[in-house]
Parts: sequence; C-alpha cells; structure tokens
Amino acid sequence: MNHDVALIGLDWGTSSLRAYLYAAGGNVVASRQHAWGIRQLPQGGFPAALCAITSGWPPCTVIAAGMVGSRQGWREVPYVGVPADSAAIARGMLRVDACTSHALWIAPGLCRNDPADVMRGEETQIIGALAQRPDLASAYFVLPGTHSKWAAVRDGRIVAFDTVMTGELYALLMKHSILGAGMPAESTLPFPNDAFARGLRTARDSGAAGVFSRLFSTRARMLSGQLAADEVADFLSALLIGEEFRIAQLRDGDAGMAPLYLIGEPSLCQRYATAAVYFGYAAPTIVDDAAAQGLWQLAAAAGLLAQATFHSYFGVDA
Amino acid sequence: MNHDVALIGLDWGTSSLRAYLYAAGGNVVASRQHAWGIRQLPQGGFPAALCAITSGWPPCTVIAAGMVGSRQGWREVPYVGVPADSAAIARGMLRVDACTSHALWIAPGLCRNDPADVMRGEETQIIGALAQRPDLASAYFVLPGTHSKWAAVRDGRIVAFDTVMTGELYALLMKHSILGAGMPAESTLPFPNDAFARGLRTARDSGAAGVFSRLFSTRARMLSGQLAADEVADFLSALLIGEEFRIAQLRDGDAGMAPLYLIGEPSLCQRYATAAVYFGYAAPTIVDDAAAQGLWQLAAAAGLLAQATFHSYFGVDA
Repeated sequence: MNHDVALIGLDWGTSSLRAYLYAAGGNVVASRQHAWGIRQLPQGGFPAALCAITSGWPPCTVIAAGMVGSRQGWREVPYVGVPADSAAIARGMLRVDACTSHALWIAPGLCRNDPADVMRGEETQIIGALAQRPDLASAYFVLPGTHSKWAAVRDGRIVAFDTVMTGELYALLMKHSILGAGMPAESTLPFPNDAFARGLRTARDSGAAGVFSRLFSTRARMLSGQLAADEVADFLSALLIGEEFRIAQLRDGDAGMAPLYLIGEPSLCQRYATAAVYFGYAAPTIVDDAAAQGLWQLAAAAGLLAQATFHSYFGVDA
Repeated sequence: MNHDVALIGLDWGTSSLRAYLYAAGGNVVASRQHAWGIRQLPQGGFPAALCAITSGWPPCTVIAAGMVGSRQGWREVPYVGVPADSAAIARGMLRVDACTSHALWIAPGLCRNDPADVMRGEETQIIGALAQRPDLASAYFVLPGTHSKWAAVRDGRIVAFDTVMTGELYALLMKHSILGAGMPAESTLPFPNDAFARGLRTARDSGAAGVFSRLFSTRARMLSGQLAADEVADFLSALLIGEEFRIAQLRDGDAGMAPLYLIGEPSLCQRYATAAVYFGYAAPTIVDDAAAQGLWQLAAAAGLLAQATFHSYFGVDA
C-alpha cells in the first residue's frame, strides 16, 4: 500500500530503540524495534543504529526522544524546567548533524528543583497520552519502570513529577541481595496472587516508617516458612510498588487520589492497577501508543511537519 | 606468660570468623581472626576452620554465635523468641559433635513476630555490652552493618528489635545501580564532610514519604552539578543511615530518644554517631569488645564454665 510519509520518530532509551514511520496525518504506517539502547549500540554507534533501523524508509525528518539526549547519548540536550507543555519541550529540541541523509532533532527531557528530579522520554509519552485523550488536560500519570515516574498535568502542562527507583531496586534485590539469593528473578506465579496481596498489605501497614523498615521481613518470613521461595518475587514486587503508592498518598493527599493513567509495559501496568485499587484509587486507565503519539505531537509543535517534504512509501513492514 | 584457660569463643559470621581464648576470669588472653565466614570456608568446611583457627590452643570447650547457627551454617539452631535474656539464649544452645577434641556449643539467634524479624550474633554482642555496663540494664542498642539492628533492652532482656538493610542496600546501590555507576565504591573524603551533612538533611526533610522517595535525587543532583562524583558515596551513605533514624523516630517516638549505644566497626559507628546528633539524640556511646564478652556471658549462663576443665596455656599470640 502506498503512503505519503512525513516523519520518522525514535523512542530511544537505555536498553531499546523503537522507530515509527508516520503518514501525513500522524498514523503510524510502519514500526520497528531493536535492542540498540544507548548502552548497547551496534558497531558504528548512534549513526549506524539510525541507518539500520530506518533502512529502506524514505529520508524523512527524524525526531528522537529519551536517553539519546542524555550526557551518555548522541548529543546532550539540556533539560527544560517544569511546568512545561509540548511547545516548551519543542523549543528545547536540538538539531544534530547526523551522518545520514536525515535531518535529526532530539527532544530535551524535563527537570525540576527541590526535590531535584529529571526525566527523559516520559515527557514525550505524557504528551502523546494527552493528545489521544483531550479530556486528560488535567490528570495524574504513572509511568512504571526502572525509574517510575509520577507526573501531575494541569491544563496540558506537566507541572511536577517524582521518580521512585522501583524497577532498579527490585532487580538489584532479586539478583544481588540476600532476599533474592537463589530465587528465580521473575515471578513464576499466576497474577494476581496471594503473595502480591500480602506484599501490598505489608507496604500499607508500614505507615509513616515506610517499606524500607519492612524489607528485611521478607527474609524473616522466608526463614519462618510464612513465605515460600516461589512467592518472594511477587511479595517483593508488591512491597516496592506499594511503597510508591504509600509515598504518593503522603505527598499528594486527597488531591493525588484523582484517577490515575498508566503508561508502560502491560504486565507492569496490571501490577500497578492492582496496587492502585488496593490503596483506594479508582481503577486506573492504561494508555497505549503514548511514545509514538508523543513524538508526532512534538514534531508538530516544533513546526517540523509544516516544513516536511512528503515521500512516497510502499509499506512492506507495517 | 602462663594462663589457666577455660573457654574458646567463636564469633562466626557470614564473612569472617573471630576466635577468643579466655582465662578463667573471662579475660581474653589470645584472639585470632580469619576470612573464613560461613560463605567462604576452607577446604574441609566448618571442622577444618575450627581446627585451624584454634591450632595450638588447649582443647577447651567452644561456644560459637552468629551465622554458624543458621540454616547455611554448621548446624541450624532454632531461634529463641523475644523477650529474651542471657539465660533464655543459653537454654536455646545446641551441642554439635565436632570432629575435633573440642566440645562445641552453638548459640541460637533471636526472632520476633509482627513484624517478622530475626538476628544471629547481635544478641550475643548485646549481652556482652550489658555485662560490661550494668547501668545499661535498660537501653537502646544500634548495631550498624549489612543488616543494621535496633534493639530495645529492658531489665537485662532484649524485648524488641528491628532490622534495616542499610549496609546491603548501600553496597548494591554503589556497585550495581545508576547512582554508583563509575564511582569509587567507598568514600574518599575526610569525615565528616558536607556531602554527608546534605544527605542527612535530605533524609530528615523527606518526612513521612521517606528516603525511598528521594533516592533518585542523588542522580538528579549529579546531573545538575549539585553533587560531585567524589561526594556520591557520602551523600548516599547519609541518606540511608538517615533513613534508619527517620524510621526509628517515627516508630519509637520520644521513648526511642533515650541515649543510644553503638556496637560495630568504629568508622561506621562514627557515621551513626554523627547522624544521631543530627537527628537530635544525645551523643551515643560506642561499646567495644561486645562479642567477646557476650560469648563468655552465654557460656556462664549455660553452665559451661562451672563444668570447665582448666588448661595451661603459654600464650604466644595474645
């Protein structure tokens, strides 16, 4: 099928690279994914990865977001401070002289002070979610992952956000600590399960002292037989996810109890949705395709689409 | 010099083995240390380590405490529940048929329920501290380390305790996480320093949300230049130690503000003493030689000294 295509979008993170080819109206006509995150690039580095993942696609303008704009990325793009909307993010974009026929623009991440915090890539996903659902002009987004982000949006602007290192801590504790020693690194039980529920209860009951004060109880429960070896992963997952909700409720109070919107891996979103309901939230909505939509929105806000040359593409890999 | 010796004590943990040879009155006349923790035993295992570390010493009765009594130890000795005094701990000791000329007794650890928690080895140190300082019959002990213990003692009995995985988390975050990536794993600055002070302040200011909610700020501060590379270890150390004090104050309230007694590595105790004062405690007292004294006390409580055969020892390695 023939398409007029106008833009290539790259969601380029630490461990993976996703590429989207857009038709003139913003629909994704082809997408590709590879493990070429910025820490595991092919020979030839960033330019080689870009050429390879867009191989056979027309020479459209390229917009990239995520860790590709970090100090360890292709080019460091300075953070934009919150509050920020898509226009502010677009103004922070930098053009890179890529050694290809493509014009390449890299989007900035966002920063906040007091407490100091940063994001790269999630801002683009939130912009994408807002575009899909204009009713979300004011909403609370949760983006679970290695470094989970909780972001408040008002009137289309990201006004504040907080990071909790949940995914990274979970992986460290399962792989390297006494809690996960000798255990399978991932849950092997059907979800939801009783171990996850007990972990959420332990997190909630930790009160103001918090989950740090209960982490070692995982070990004590294993020793006393209250927690089976195959339950450790789910219990610990629930403890750490529960800690995010405990923190959010203390930080945001009732205002933070607005419906939540989840963006991320479906199985991880399911865990967060279960935790949200346990902590008294309405069942969250899971938003799909946020990165692809966000890249398109930022390109539009930056005026890249207005200047775009349209190319004909006979899609074979859509 | 000639001694009448009566007992050998072993403080046998995960990563090290310390042996003490006691004169009839309880004075240590010789001590040895080796890296033969229960996870790094010499060929021949536990018996070989015992023979080697007591080589040349008379065939006294041996008492051991610590991880040697765990499921991964020489023999699992069931936990004794709190509250417990030295007599209750002594009643829980088990005799092991060591393939040596020694009679070997292994002390139990302590457990508590709700929240589930366990210790092995620290109970012996606390008993030793109490024997040295009878005025401490009621006191609050902090034993910093891989798994820090906070233990309340009333009338000579350990009534409650809590574990925080501070040392293990610090090592994991410095070695394996994005916060410590590329940093020296240990502090290289003189102590105390400004990075440690800022970490304590960040921990205290985290309030009820807790330090988990501020962990990623370490990264954000590094990126913005607020935290230099050589300050990361001290900042993170203070964050995690500060979290222990934040938890303790929320858990124990004013009752927990009694003077603290610290048992552990001197440099680590210094960090905790600094944190204690920052969090409003009186300057803590650091207790030395707690394990050696505790082993002697438990042997006495178990009646091992009453039955002991005294041997002559011409000390050469005291």
